[in-house]
Amino acid sequence: MKGIGQKARAASRAMARASTASKNEALIQLAALVRKNAEALKVVNAKDVERAKANGQDAAFIDRLTLTDKTIATMAEGLEQIAKLSDPIGEMSNIRKMPSGIQVGQMRVPLGVIGIIYESRPNVTIDAAALCLKSGNATILRGGSEAIDSNTALAKLIQESLSLAGLPSDAVQVVETTDRAAVGAMITMNEYIDVIVPRGGKSLIERLMADARVPMIKHLDGICHTYIDVLADPAKAIKVCDNAKTQRYAPCNTMETLLVHEAAIKDSLLPLCKIYQDKGVELRVCKKTKQALEAAGVKNLIDATEEDWSTEYLAPILSIKTVSNMDEAMEHINQYGSHHTDCIITEDYSAGMRFLREVDSASVMINASSRFADGFEYGLGAEIGISNDKLHARGPVGLEGLTSMKYIVFGQGEIRT
Amino acid sequence: MKGIGQKARAASRAMARASTASKNEALIQLAALVRKNAEALKVVNAKDVERAKANGQDAAFIDRLTLTDKTIATMAEGLEQIAKLSDPIGEMSNIRKMPSGIQVGQMRVPLGVIGIIYESRPNVTIDAAALCLKSGNATILRGGSEAIDSNTALAKLIQESLSLAGLPSDAVQVVETTDRAAVGAMITMNEYIDVIVPRGGKSLIERLMADARVPMIKHLDGICHTYIDVLADPAKAIKVCDNAKTQRYAPCNTMETLLVHEAAIKDSLLPLCKIYQDKGVELRVCKKTKQALEAAGVKNLIDATEEDWSTEYLAPILSIKTVSNMDEAMEHINQYGSHHTDCIITEDYSAGMRFLREVDSASVMINASSRFADGFEYGLGAEIGISNDKLHARGPVGLEGLTSMKYIVFGQGEIRT
Repeated sequence: MKGIGQKARAASRAMARASTASKNEALIQLAALVRKNAEALKVVNAKDVERAKANGQDAAFIDRLTLTDKTIATMAEGLEQIAKLSDPIGEMSNIRKMPSGIQVGQMRVPLGVIGIIYESRPNVTIDAAALCLKSGNATILRGGSEAIDSNTALAKLIQESLSLAGLPSDAVQVVETTDRAAVGAMITMNEYIDVIVPRGGKSLIERLMADARVPMIKHLDGICHTYIDVLADPAKAIKVCDNAKTQRYAPCNTMETLLVHEAAIKDSLLPLCKIYQDKGVELRVCKKTKQALEAAGVKNLIDATEEDWSTEYLAPILSIKTVSNMDEAMEHINQYGSHHTDCIITEDYSAGMRFLREVDSASVMINASSRFADGFEYGLGAEIGISNDKLHARGPVGLEGLTSMKYIVFGQGEIRT
Repeated sequence: MKGIGQKARAASRAMARASTASKNEALIQLAALVRKNAEALKVVNAKDVERAKANGQDAAFIDRLTLTDKTIATMAEGLEQIAKLSDPIGEMSNIRKMPSGIQVGQMRVPLGVIGIIYESRPNVTIDAAALCLKSGNATILRGGSEAIDSNTALAKLIQESLSLAGLPSDAVQVVETTDRAAVGAMITMNEYIDVIVPRGGKSLIERLMADARVPMIKHLDGICHTYIDVLADPAKAIKVCDNAKTQRYAPCNTMETLLVHEAAIKDSLLPLCKIYQDKGVELRVCKKTKQALEAAGVKNLIDATEEDWSTEYLAPILSIKTVSNMDEAMEHINQYGSHHTDCIITEDYSAGMRFLREVDSASVMINASSRFADGFEYGLGAEIGISNDKLHARGPVGLEGLTSMKYIVFGQGEIRT
């Protein structure tokens, strides 16, 4: 691993000064290579899939692992899209003249070497490599052992494309060992790796957090709330809360807890309950909610436990709590939430602005579905992940999250007195 | 420590929504209290000083520890200056309309709870508390045991000023124990502390780095270079390099290594050597430099060892290396430097721009003294420290470095399709 680290560090210097044209050339060459080698990739991938089946992995796992014509085409298109994004590196901003005479500003530069640790999806190999490459970083990729054959084959294509574009092939290295010690080395190699981006479930992240010495841009969980305020427009509340829960159940930005002002139960919550129950969503409710809903004839309500308020279901289950005012809602969110994405439905200007300011989450929204918390929907063009951290990048992380701002000074021989 | 952490977390919520007026009121009240209690502070401080003397601390240590009329006046003025800075919290930026209809932007918010771990200077208690307060954070301050009496007295004044301004007095807590375990607790209390800012020598920082689980904004060392290019203006080279080394020897932004293009020895380095030697600066030189300088009659040159290139002298000592071209200079800087502040002296536009882009340091300068790498000189208004890190804040860290950007979404009932 030390050798890989040293090669990455050396390559990162060349990548930092690589032209936009050569970085884009590598991405476009790679898209062509991925398309050209589609059949060969599927053959190699079949080995991984076969092994996973023999190991008794479930259908969802096999699905994530399998490369199909469609996933291969999507990878190639993704590469071409990243080539089209503007290059963040070298951007100079905020240049101002100081009383001393110097002009001070900032320049956007790559972070250096980025380590990606991820689980079974082989397409992450291509996506992550492409984002790191475009942002001028060198990358060390460590996929799961279950996808080792696919990842090794993809790595060869990546390195070929780098060579075709005149860039150092060490700029993207795939760790071709399934030895777990490699992960331990990566997360402690401060001298060779500037940041680790883990992509995977909460258990992977927590395992890495326990031992990491290298800083991480990480995503834990998404316990997202929507609060229906006393002055909510019921039509918007119903439309948005339906979408936030039921458009897809598995994403991290799906609503898990609905908070309702007691005055909004009749016009907003009652019709919503019908929609949820029609769609098969299990409702776990607080006492106050249960009383009000049962009085209105709603059935099949489950009592929410204390644990429900801090559970990310990722499933057709929703917890519901009735509150007496917005302060109670915000207190609940700041206490039980995961600081990912939280929304208010209101027509009250002051309530909306207070909610925006005071809810301590990576994304805070007024009158919109939490499902919008996403790099593409935010116009970042691409996304390496969503950060739960407050330092550096917060929320959806695009190319800029893989860069750093250094100070630059333009002088004319000034000295400090 | 857990109790302190919980109180800080609770206070951080109130601080995040505190008005600019009340934060400024606390700062101005504190300035008045510091002035009013000057005599009492000196009496308390005398206990710390006496203990330090009894423990055999040296004069420099005693000097840093002692509160004088001047240091007390400076503290009060500093507070009034921070009150005058504009409040970074709540600033909304980059709001754009997306194809879905939502408007997405970012809002600047406090980090939450900041832990400051520092050594003997009691004025850090006031400076750090003031910067964290103005940026809407709660703070836990852990000064050195040698200043415990002074820090405890200052903490009382801070909490009084918070109460006078209607802010929670737990917003600034001073750890009133000299037990080392308190530091160990602080650097691992992820659930209560969002970031640690250590202020002290390299040995303190390295000790903290070894065990910290909470992210740190940290400053290690300043091995700063100036490179005199083949196309340097000798007048600028001489003026800037004299200033960068001799204006003050101890700061982290003082030049430690001078790199000289072989064609710049005669016009720039020779006159500089006379200036340095007249000021008593010891010159440690590479072989090539020694040959050239001795041939020109310069005496008392010391052979540089490999260790010199990675040494921060903080003293009237300068290492000098002759290079054949700018690439050799940049390679030396990126390999031996500490990525703090590095400068080029040149009239060559392309060389200057390449140097700016390719030198991987927090501050990179053209034709200016490295001594300008400072929060005040950069117009930040104040400085909590200088960061050697690449993530989050890099270089001088002002109020903005103590904040985070969250995403905000203004919707009109949009849903994801």
